[in-house]
Amino acid sequence: MNITLNDAADTLLRHDNFLIITHANPDGDTLGSGFGLCFALRQLGKKANVICSDEFPKRFMFLYNGYSEEVFKPEFIVSVDVATPELMGKLKETLPQVDLCIDHHKTNAYFAKNSFVLGSAATCEHIYSLLLLMNVNMTKQIASCLYTGIATDTGCFKFSNTTASTHQIASELISMGADYPFINEYLFDTKSKSRISVEQEFLNRIEYYLNGRLAVSYITRKMINDTGADEAELDGVSGITRSIEGVDIGITLREKEDGSCKVSVRTTAAFDASNICAQFGGGGHARAAGCRFSCGIEQAKQKIVSFCETLI
Amino acid sequence: MNITLNDAADTLLRHDNFLIITHANPDGDTLGSGFGLCFALRQLGKKANVICSDEFPKRFMFLYNGYSEEVFKPEFIVSVDVATPELMGKLKETLPQVDLCIDHHKTNAYFAKNSFVLGSAATCEHIYSLLLLMNVNMTKQIASCLYTGIATDTGCFKFSNTTASTHQIASELISMGADYPFINEYLFDTKSKSRISVEQEFLNRIEYYLNGRLAVSYITRKMINDTGADEAELDGVSGITRSIEGVDIGITLREKEDGSCKVSVRTTAAFDASNICAQFGGGGHARAAGCRFSCGIEQAKQKIVSFCETLI
Repeated sequence: MNITLNDAADTLLRHDNFLIITHANPDGDTLGSGFGLCFALRQLGKKANVICSDEFPKRFMFLYNGYSEEVFKPEFIVSVDVATPELMGKLKETLPQVDLCIDHHKTNAYFAKNSFVLGSAATCEHIYSLLLLMNVNMTKQIASCLYTGIATDTGCFKFSNTTASTHQIASELISMGADYPFINEYLFDTKSKSRISVEQEFLNRIEYYLNGRLAVSYITRKMINDTGADEAELDGVSGITRSIEGVDIGITLREKEDGSCKVSVRTTAAFDASNICAQFGGGGHARAAGCRFSCGIEQAKQKIVSFCETLI
Repeated sequence: MNITLNDAADTLLRHDNFLIITHANPDGDTLGSGFGLCFALRQLGKKANVICSDEFPKRFMFLYNGYSEEVFKPEFIVSVDVATPELMGKLKETLPQVDLCIDHHKTNAYFAKNSFVLGSAATCEHIYSLLLLMNVNMTKQIASCLYTGIATDTGCFKFSNTTASTHQIASELISMGADYPFINEYLFDTKSKSRISVEQEFLNRIEYYLNGRLAVSYITRKMINDTGADEAELDGVSGITRSIEGVDIGITLREKEDGSCKVSVRTTAAFDASNICAQFGGGGHARAAGCRFSCGIEQAKQKIVSFCETLI
């Protein structure tokens, strides 16, 4: 059942001993939501822990600085930024049904007993409104958690999911002490040396087709092994080819351990990325989609470029 | 004399036939302020033109779409985002004294008859407040001009000059119709092919010193000529070396036409960039400064790296 944010606030205030579930392969929004809510519940004298099927990434360590797991018997399960049960990863198998789901994905599967689901730039926007309704004292730590979720899900207010309300909430979180100078520099203005090396190799390999309207490049296992980059460091590389002026279709191929490859397609409004990927058994959104090939990079590249040539 | 924003609004409402001066080598903030103010004054039935010592850059053409110069005898001169008379370029020689200066640089030289100068993220923030005081109807076109100035001067809300008030104003401009999805994608998510080529060469040339705490790279005339890049396309390249994880001093050298070179130094809080540049007759801010060398890139690099080695 979808409930109002007021009802969600009342429910949380009436319960204790919370388990807060973040989604697998956790990002800034699920972690910011989870720890923001956890610190708020603890401030209200309740017990709360945050859990995830994967380890909390080191990159987001500043969000859970000072956090340690408490020992108690969980009585109420809240999921944050989790659209489907599958996204809980292996936690899905062991946990009872989620009591309250708070999410911003319109595609939410309504798998919880009660859900507050509303389309917005980030789940942290909802957590912000929720904590205000619960009369939580918005500390610097909580404000920083919520700011992080909003900033990461909007590419630091750059993506078109940003709204007037997103900026309004960011303004209030900054007034409440969110450490945005640190967060922005650390998350959006710092690249690891291995990321720089992968990017360099990636740029060296860009090829143009269709009179410059299609750009393609790739990342091999060798590039990853040579540079020591991990998956989290490759975040955003798939956006590079499409960001080149005049390019309507940007394609990025990544070689997997087993020699197969994963393809990411980004397009301008001129082409539908999900249609291109559907041709190869994949899918996604109109401007960002993906598919997999069991063959290697070179063959996969030829197949997808040939298909794109038929679209013009 | 420094006047209040209320007085500035009254003065503008009492006058007509405006010349609005933007600074030389114009950026998004001076152009957004200039055209935003111009469209507002014209909406109020007044005559107004925007001028600049340099051509308006094609990159910002969307700001002056539909603008054409009107013919009239100027009676009142307003400068926007101009900190010193020198920044007016060659206009400085031919124009009478500026009547009203509106600026956000704390270093403003108070060269105008009247000035409204207040530190803030962008001059467009002041123009926004000014136009509200003047009861201007904030059209999509005006809102887009002001949003552009704010977004460009804050690196799309990433830099630490961003404040709660910056986000508050952005929120209101979005509600008023500012075309931020187009502006953000165009300004912050699109790179020309020649920019990509320069960046690629630049990354290939990065060298590390001081155990990885100093990174240096350079742009030669040959790189610029081979790729066909122009100065505007090189915007932001100087930020790359400092953005590498672990790097406290990022140095970028650019070869000039006459074989000399221009050096840009960016630092973390651990070093003072202006102190480093002062050593070579340059200057700037604590975290971003510059200097010039009459020698070539290789020699300049050795000199500045050697000096930085003495700092540790």
